[in-house]
Formats: sequence, structure tokens, C-alpha cells
Amino acid sequence: MADERFYQKSGPYTLQDLADHCGVVLGPGVDPARVLTDVAPLHKAGPTHLSCLHNPKYIEQFKKTNAGACFVSLEYAHHAPAGVAVLISPQPYRAYGKAAALFYPHPKKVDGISLQASIHPTAQIGKNCSIGPFAVIESHVIVGDGCEIGPYALIGPGVELGRDCQVAAHVTISHALLGNGVVIKPGARIGQKGFGFHMDEAGHLNIPQLGRVVIGDDVEIGANTTIDRGAEADTVIGRGTRIDNLVQIAHNVQIGENCVIVAQCGIAGSTQLGRFVVLAGQVGIAGHLVVEDGVKVAAQSGVMRDIAKGETVAGYPSVPVRDWHRQTIALKKLVEKGNSK
Amino acid sequence: MADERFYQKSGPYTLQDLADHCGVVLGPGVDPARVLTDVAPLHKAGPTHLSCLHNPKYIEQFKKTNAGACFVSLEYAHHAPAGVAVLISPQPYRAYGKAAALFYPHPKKVDGISLQASIHPTAQIGKNCSIGPFAVIESHVIVGDGCEIGPYALIGPGVELGRDCQVAAHVTISHALLGNGVVIKPGARIGQKGFGFHMDEAGHLNIPQLGRVVIGDDVEIGANTTIDRGAEADTVIGRGTRIDNLVQIAHNVQIGENCVIVAQCGIAGSTQLGRFVVLAGQVGIAGHLVVEDGVKVAAQSGVMRDIAKGETVAGYPSVPVRDWHRQTIALKKLVEKGNSK
Amino acid sequence: MADERFYQKSGPYTLQDLADHCGVVLGPGVDPARVLTDVAPLHKAGPTHLSCLHNPKYIEQFKKTNAGACFVSLEYAHHAPAGVAVLISPQPYRAYGKAAALFYPHPKKVDGISLQASIHPTAQIGKNCSIGPFAVIESHVIVGDGCEIGPYALIGPGVELGRDCQVAAHVTISHALLGNGVVIKPGARIGQKGFGFHMDEAGHLNIPQLGRVVIGDDVEIGANTTIDRGAEADTVIGRGTRIDNLVQIAHNVQIGENCVIVAQCGIAGSTQLGRFVVLAGQVGIAGHLVVEDGVKVAAQSGVMRDIAKGETVAGYPSVPVRDWHRQTIALKKLVEKGNSK
Repeated sequence: MADERFYQKSGPYTLQDLADHCGVVLGPGVDPARVLTDVAPLHKAGPTHLSCLHNPKYIEQFKKTNAGACFVSLEYAHHAPAGVAVLISPQPYRAYGKAAALFYPHPKKVDGISLQASIHPTAQIGKNCSIGPFAVIESHVIVGDGCEIGPYALIGPGVELGRDCQVAAHVTISHALLGNGVVIKPGARIGQKGFGFHMDEAGHLNIPQLGRVVIGDDVEIGANTTIDRGAEADTVIGRGTRIDNLVQIAHNVQIGENCVIVAQCGIAGSTQLGRFVVLAGQVGIAGHLVVEDGVKVAAQSGVMRDIAKGETVAGYPSVPVRDWHRQTIALKKLVEKGNSK
Repeated sequence: MADERFYQKSGPYTLQDLADHCGVVLGPGVDPARVLTDVAPLHKAGPTHLSCLHNPKYIEQFKKTNAGACFVSLEYAHHAPAGVAVLISPQPYRAYGKAAALFYPHPKKVDGISLQASIHPTAQIGKNCSIGPFAVIESHVIVGDGCEIGPYALIGPGVELGRDCQVAAHVTISHALLGNGVVIKPGARIGQKGFGFHMDEAGHLNIPQLGRVVIGDDVEIGANTTIDRGAEADTVIGRGTRIDNLVQIAHNVQIGENCVIVAQCGIAGSTQLGRFVVLAGQVGIAGHLVVEDGVKVAAQSGVMRDIAKGETVAGYPSVPVRDWHRQTIALKKLVEKGNSK
Repeated sequence: MADERFYQKSGPYTLQDLADHCGVVLGPGVDPARVLTDVAPLHKAGPTHLSCLHNPKYIEQFKKTNAGACFVSLEYAHHAPAGVAVLISPQPYRAYGKAAALFYPHPKKVDGISLQASIHPTAQIGKNCSIGPFAVIESHVIVGDGCEIGPYALIGPGVELGRDCQVAAHVTISHALLGNGVVIKPGARIGQKGFGFHMDEAGHLNIPQLGRVVIGDDVEIGANTTIDRGAEADTVIGRGTRIDNLVQIAHNVQIGENCVIVAQCGIAGSTQLGRFVVLAGQVGIAGHLVVEDGVKVAAQSGVMRDIAKGETVAGYPSVPVRDWHRQTIALKKLVEKGNSK
């Protein structure tokens, strides 16, 4: 279904191929040799397409789908219309992601290193790298094997990239060490000087920013996001963490593994996030705080205190999410009471 | 009045020229042959300048202006000082905009296609296009007639631009189809992979993002704004919509015609906006919502529910604007009551 | 302590050198000839390192530090462990900043003007400038002595830069006049057309934006920040003001001297800020307001009214900070009361 101007499709695949690749079980009576040509959403899929019921709210679409096959959890599998082959998975959306990536593999850049790139003679470029036109790789940079570096990407002096990193167009990286498989989307700024100065009526005096940005394996960083380098210590982004677009991460911030930080969040200087922390969109977190493992913060909340492990908070200033709901209801009643007088 | 280092002035024009061009009526006794040389604000204008009363709060400036002529609504025209020629319009600011554009027309780039641009041999470039140095136009791109593409603009494989588009410097576009007259300001990112993955303790798994960005005619997109491509469906921006700087538009969002989205707003995935929706600055809208035609959302509001046609909402979470004012007042009273104890 | 891949160290220096350079007094009994090799934080410093007690909350670290010397205020100096040379200053952090800048001076670019830059023949470039690869300097630009212009920086026609400006990679500047010592971080957009149009059901009509951006001496502007040029008047950033990353400054905004604007703030059109105004992160300020000298605005606040000199405000909509604390407490009590019923 994807527009051929932008996507190259692989396949077709048999149901057996797909079940093996995605680690799922074929439903009873499903023909493992049945051939599928593409993925598609429930309401658009045809008889050679593979679809997915990833959210019960689409159950009605599922009951009427014309898809040839569908990932579904055991709980809902019996709703499948006749003729739809079911692939049973406790995580149907995850399985679907694997199948979609099989049909539409990441297009490997084969252009090699552009003659219009500017690469310093002391830079070390690994094997099978692609470097776009007008990229600049400065002195003593180390780029691991299999990296893709887009047009106008600037990799500053001494920066190190692990294997299989994807640095999109227009990205700036300096004072940074990246692990393997790091993905950086267009226009992200990594490693610039943080917002550090001594305020004074005589004028603000800059404090030299002498740290780095250290990014773990498989981190993804969104478009136009900014991550300042540390002042003394490093700014650290833990392995597997996903950061969306237009996020601000200040100097010395430390983010644990597998966190999820949605668009337009801002994290002030020296704050620490544990593992698997989730910040919904436009959240702000003040500086010098500790947000422990597994914390969830609702969209637009303002966090001004440490948050203990596993808590869910909301509001401005943020409070436990149940209290925030109560506040909202109390305010509503207060207004109603005022009106009834 | 504009700095000649940056702006080239056209003219002079007679009042008749201006009235005809702007579709307005000359006031009684105005000499249609009177010549004007420039536009200027009320308090700075001189006898050969054309000004505008676009907001009644500047009525005192209007009463004292030295302008040669002034756009004004019928209601306020009688306040004009002696000697000021009035041009009557029900929309004086709109008329002023037309006049200003006559004195200061969009400077047509005449440089043609820079020899320092990198253009793929399969790309089709229309007539009368200008392409800046270090622009990159990739394979199978189609650029309509009269487009202006700035330095360092990257137009990814297969992207199509209609006629008379202006793509500023440092813009990234991929997986996108643009209509005619689309204006994109510096550093906007359009068409990158959205924030789509399956969260799991074993690590987050990316879901391939297989959609596009489809942008209607006469859309304007602000500096450093990010618009992710769709996951399965497309991300759509309707004709005539204006998007300000640093806005985040997530995958699958659909925005209707002639909406206005002020700076730093964020719209989460799969949300739909109708026509003529206005979002003031820093608004956040959660995912999978429907915001109907003509809705207005006050600055910094957080929208977490569908909003019906024509409503005005405010607050976090957003409520009808009248209720939000009541909440604000109720809170104020609550504090006062607390103080008086 | 700084990573040699990214930082070049100067020195060593004697305590006398350092005291003279930083304008501080050696504590009683301190050997002025003692030699120091580096700066380091209290808990990491060794016997040849210079450290700082800049915040009383680190007093326990200070009591145990192995630093060779330490900047400290008179009040806390007596807590220094034996063997730590104290350098007494009423502003120890400011003194530390000066010392750190002595050990780690700004690395002077010595590459000169890249042959891969594109410089218009009518542009005037001062002495001792460095211009990176793929920079574009357009017609009639004036660049003062000692400026550093990074890769892919675009300096539009007629723009003027004073002495010793640092324009980072990927910056766009047009329609702007910059003072001396202005620092612009990567991806900032300065001088593009503002969000100015007349809204109408027939479609929005652009109003030509005919002003400039005027930036005073020693201003710093953050990564991916956007500053639109004025519509009629200019957008003005006063001398010494610091602007963080991802900030939006709309057309005609006027900001006084030495303000501090933290990341992700947005200031709407035509608003004026006085001198020494501090906006914490994610603040929004509506248009056409006056915020007077010395005002402080708490993070995430929404300012919808003029704010008088020296006030501190917080909340949405913003109120005096004391009232905002009371509101927060009142809401908390309201919820508790509701719960106890």
C-alpha cells in the first residue's frame, strides 16, 4: 500500500515465513503456504494483505476486514471473519512491526562516500559507510562500520560514532560519543555549549562547559531536538531511549535506559531520570531533580520535585495523577457551586 | 521606511492606483492623482506615506497622524485629521497588506540554478526556478515552475513540489507531496520517520512508518517546525493553513483548510483538525482526537477530548473558555477566603 | 579533567596567577607559588586541581574535598579541610568561571576562510575571520574582525556582524544587524518573515514583514531558537541578553539588556521586556504586553497581562508567586476536604 515513489517493497512471503520471522503461532486451520504481498490497516487491507488488531477499539473493523491474514491476540481471535488467517500473538502490534519491517526493509544506502563531502584526513571512516554530499567530518572523528551520514551533517572534532548509526541531514554533533545503532533525525543539535553562566548586574559571565554528550546503543533522537553537552560531568542518554522532536535536554542531564520522551519536553540542567521513564508531550522538569525508574508524567505537566519509583504524576505543579483528577473535579464543582448561587 | 539594505521599494503610486489595487473606495474629496511613495505606521508616517488604522486602540495616533493617506473603516473615517486622504475599507488591514505588497513586492530570485547545487539527473526542474548553492535535489524529484529553493535545502527522493513554492534555506523534505504556492521557512523538517514503536521491557521495537506528508496549496510552515510523515495513512495539511515556528505535528495528523497554528503548539498522532481551527501559542493536543471546524484554543491549553464545532476552549485540561474564566476567579476567591481567616 | 579529544588545556598556573586573574584574595597562610594544573568539581578534584564551593548544599563535599585549592566565600572558608588552599571571593562561582576559562580558553579557529565557502564578491570580510566549509555569505554582507562563521551558516544579503561574533554551523541569518561578540548556536533562525497575515474566510492574506532583527553586543542565542524580523518596527534583543535553546521570539518583540530566557519560552508579537527580566523554561508571554525591569517568571507560566517592575509571577494565567503558592495549597486542601467527606 505504501507509495512506490518513497518505499521499496520486498516479498511476497508465505504465512509460515511470516510466523517464523515474527515469532508467532498460526491459528488453527491456517494454510502455512498462503502467500501475502503487503501489510495494510484493517479497513484498507485486501485478500493478499497482512493486517493487525492492535487495539480493541478497532474490533468492529476487525470483524469486517477483508485482510488475508491478521495478527491478533488469542482473546480476540475468534472474532476473525471467515477466510481471514489469524496469527496469534500476545503482542500483535510488535509482531506487525516485525512483519512490516520485513516487507519494507530499511533502504540501505549504496552511494558510498560523496565526493562533495568534506572529510578531514585524520578522520577514520569504517567499512560500508554512506556519507552524503556536503557532509563535514572534522579532525580525529571515528565513524564505525555501516554508518549512514546524511547531507550537511556536521561531525565535530574528536566525535566517535559506533556501528550502524544513522545521522540524518542537517544534524550537528560535537563533543559527543555515540554507541552502536544510534538514530538521529534531521536538524538535531548535539553537544553545543549549555546555558551556563553566572548572572550578575555587571553582566552575565559564561562558565566554560567542559563535558560531553554520551549516547548509548540504539538511542533515537528526534528532529530539531537539542542536547547540550555537560558542564563538568557529561550529559548522558541511556541505551534504547527514544526522544521525539523539539525536545530540550540541558547540560548534565542523565537519562536512563529505554526511556520515552515525547515531543517538546524540556529537562533542565543536572536532572536525573531512571530507566523506563515516560514523559508525555510538552512536559517540563526542573533542574537538579531525581525521577526514578518507571515514572510516568502526563502531558504538559510541570515537575518541580523528585518523583519516586513507578509513580504516575500530572499537573502543574505535578501531583500524583489521582490527586490531579480530583483537583480537576473539585475545580469544576467549585465553579458549578458559584454558578448556582 | 524599510531598510534599503534589505528591501527594494517599488512605486510611487497614485491614490487611484492604490484604491484600484486594494479594492477600496476613496473618501469624499480625495484627490485620486495624489502620489504616495511608501507605507508607514501611523506615528511615523509623513505626507507621502500610506498608513492604516487597523485597531481602534490606535485611534489617538490616527487623530494625530501626519500620513498622506490612510486605510480606515467607515466607522472611524471622520476622525481623520485635515489633509489625510482616507481610503475606506471594511477590512483596512487587509487592504494595507495589499498596498504594502505593492510597494515591497516579493523579490524574485534571478540567480537561476546554482552551479554549487547537487541535482540528480532524474530530477525534473520546472521553468524559472531558482536553486541556491549547496541545495540537494535527489532522484525522481519533481519541482514545479517558478519554485525558489534556498541554500542547503534537501529535497528527498520522489518528492513533488507544485508551482511557485518557496523552500527556504536549511529545510529538509522527504516522503512528501506539496501543492502550489507552499512556503516553508528555514530549518523546517518535513517527512521524517514518526515516533512510532512498540514499548516493551525487552526494549522498544520500531514500527515502520510507511506514509507520506501531503501539503495543500498556499500552506505556510514556520521555521524549525517538524512534521512527521504518516505511519500507514498520510499526515495532511489542508490548503491555506498557516503554521508558525517550532510547531510539532506528529504522524497521521490531519489538518483542515485555513487553520492557524501559532508557535510551539504540539499535535499528537492521528488527531484531526477541521477547517479554520485556531490554536494559540504552546497549545498541546493529545492523540486520536477530533477538533471540529472553527474551534479556537487559548494559548498553553491542553486539549484531551474531542472539541465540537465552533467552540472556544482554554485551560489544562481544556474546558469551555467561560468555565475556564470561572475557574480562575473561583481559585482567586478561594485564596482570598483562606487569607481572610 | 576535560576529555582531551574535545578540549585543549592551558597552564599550569600558580595560585598567585589565578588570584590575580580572577580578582580574588588568597586565604591566610596560602602559598602563592603553589602550582595548579586544572579545574575539577569538589568530589573529583585532586591535589593539583582548583575547585569551587558555589552552592552551600555542597558543603559536605567541600569538607572532604581533596582539591589543592578552592574558591569559597568568606562565610564558608573555615570549613576547608587542612591542606586546601582557599581563594576568598564574594562570588566564588564567577571567579571559578574565570579560572576555568583560563585553563580552557576558547579555541581560536585558525583555519581562515574555507575554499569551499561561497562568498559574494560584494561582501566585506574583516581581519582574522574564520569561515567554515559550505558557508554562504551573500551580497553586501559586512563581517567584522575576528568573527567565526561555521559550516553551512547562511548570512543573507545586507546583514552586518560586529567584531568577534561566533555564528555556529547551520545558522540562518537574514534582515539583521548584529553587534560585537554575539554568539549564535547551531540551527538558530534569525530574521525570517514573521507570522503576520489578515485572517479571513476567503483565505488568509499575508502582510509584508518589512522590519529587521537588531541584536546588541554580547548577546547569546540558543540552538534551534527562532527570532522573526519585525513587521514594521524591528525585533530587538538588548545587549548581554542570554537566550537558551528552542525559544520563539515573534515579530516586533523588544527585549532589554541582560535578560535571561530559558529554553522553550515563547514571546508573542510586539511584547516588550525590560532589563534583567528572567523567564524560566517553557514560559509563554502573550502579545502586545509590557514586562518591566527585573521581572521573574516561573517555569511554564502563562503571562497574559503587563507585569510591573521587579515582580515575580507564576501560574497559568500568571499571578504573583505568593498567590500562586496559595492557589496550589488551596486546591490541595479542597481535594482533601472532598476526600474526607
